[in-house]
Amino acid sequence: MKRIAYLGPQGTYAEEATFTLFPEDFVSLPHPSIQGTLRALAKGEADFAVVPIENSIEGTVSATLDSLWVLPQLQVFKALVLPIRHCLITQEPSIETIRTVFSHPQALAQCQGWLEEHLGAIPCVPTASTVEALQKISSGVAVVASTRAAELYNLPILHAGINDAPDNCTRFWLVGPPGQSLAQPTRTSIGFSLHNNRAGALHDALTHFAIRNINLAKLESRPTKKVIGEYLFFADLEGDADQNPLKEALEELWASVEKLKILGTYPILALPQA
Amino acid sequence: MKRIAYLGPQGTYAEEATFTLFPEDFVSLPHPSIQGTLRALAKGEADFAVVPIENSIEGTVSATLDSLWVLPQLQVFKALVLPIRHCLITQEPSIETIRTVFSHPQALAQCQGWLEEHLGAIPCVPTASTVEALQKISSGVAVVASTRAAELYNLPILHAGINDAPDNCTRFWLVGPPGQSLAQPTRTSIGFSLHNNRAGALHDALTHFAIRNINLAKLESRPTKKVIGEYLFFADLEGDADQNPLKEALEELWASVEKLKILGTYPILALPQA
Repeated sequence: MKRIAYLGPQGTYAEEATFTLFPEDFVSLPHPSIQGTLRALAKGEADFAVVPIENSIEGTVSATLDSLWVLPQLQVFKALVLPIRHCLITQEPSIETIRTVFSHPQALAQCQGWLEEHLGAIPCVPTASTVEALQKISSGVAVVASTRAAELYNLPILHAGINDAPDNCTRFWLVGPPGQSLAQPTRTSIGFSLHNNRAGALHDALTHFAIRNINLAKLESRPTKKVIGEYLFFADLEGDADQNPLKEALEELWASVEKLKILGTYPILALPQA
Repeated sequence: MKRIAYLGPQGTYAEEATFTLFPEDFVSLPHPSIQGTLRALAKGEADFAVVPIENSIEGTVSATLDSLWVLPQLQVFKALVLPIRHCLITQEPSIETIRTVFSHPQALAQCQGWLEEHLGAIPCVPTASTVEALQKISSGVAVVASTRAAELYNLPILHAGINDAPDNCTRFWLVGPPGQSLAQPTRTSIGFSLHNNRAGALHDALTHFAIRNINLAKLESRPTKKVIGEYLFFADLEGDADQNPLKEALEELWASVEKLKILGTYPILALPQA
């Protein structure tokens, strides 16, 4: 059976992504942090890892990019876009008797409009994790979490789908040790650092793709963590890294940057909204 | 007296930045979130706001960019780079008797190496804020927070400067209603959205700066929050937006993008490491 590390604990959307990617049985290895999840894979304690890379509201999950940049020998095999559906979990029979809402700050932010409209000015208290919030369930308390979390902790859902953006979704990456692509790649993710901060260096790097009409689906800067104002760049490009024109563009980029890391070339799997 | 909104509560680095920017007396308006801080300014409840925009380790503070993009009529007047110096706060006489460490996840992450080396495998428990961590101070407990937080809550510092990166610093923005620049601007921050996701659109946008040798100090993509894979871009450019060559480049950019917002053109103030 395959050992799958994922961002836990039980009931997270990363766990839901793991079940979708591995419908057969697997050994479940939940980790409390993204760094820990990917480190377990790098150390050979797991065969694959499932981590979030981007949410449609919150943007890039920086910890995933930062870890993949420093950890050696890891490869993205697949992207999975999962719809996010937050629920109001409470033992109260109606919203009138709710006095406090607990959840992770991101979940609270994503439901802010709904909560203000239906619950008014009652306090929304941030917790370090959704699971910590669920432990606070008692009289007058509600928690924002997933359907799966409610099922796992055997708690009633009062309202489902309370996120303000109905098409809220999160992209997850399936990461493994280097190997053959699982299916025809349509997307390639890279990280690179430039020789210096000179004017136009980033523009020059992007020229290799622009002149070949290769779509830059995403571009992100991250601090080098050495000096404030020095950056690495992460880009998502349309196409297969082993086929032209992308292959040729990457070879040219390789010659012009300080360091280039191809994080993976992979297919994207999208799940319809429930 | 000026009314200054800042990311609170008391004892945060944002408060320290506020005291540095306003050495004279001011009316202190701490807010629990960045959105709330900037909204108070937009509603006229404050004369200025002080918010973090970037940390040398954690990268951009997305909430600041997202709020400035949607709130009308706000302008960045000054950037302040503040050294960050985390302390181990505890009532224990030595590290031998510490059994648990509480703090905000970012502060724990920034001291991870020091904590592992000096405290070994004892649990580091994330809290929603540094202040929540300080409320947990009791026998066997330590908290990672600022010198100022220790002073405010009258708690003893066992070790100062425990952050792994000694030159850890955070950039804050002083934001106000539109008006005259306070001093000679050296940096200009903009946000823009592109007409479509066509190949090369971002490259074309950057060309206006590259051909004029204008340094792009930073580039960040943020989700439009509508569809996953659609982005806004935020850029920091060297120079004064009201002087050539930047003035001319921005006029050209204006004509080629869907929306352009000049967040501010301002001087940067850097404080030496303590």
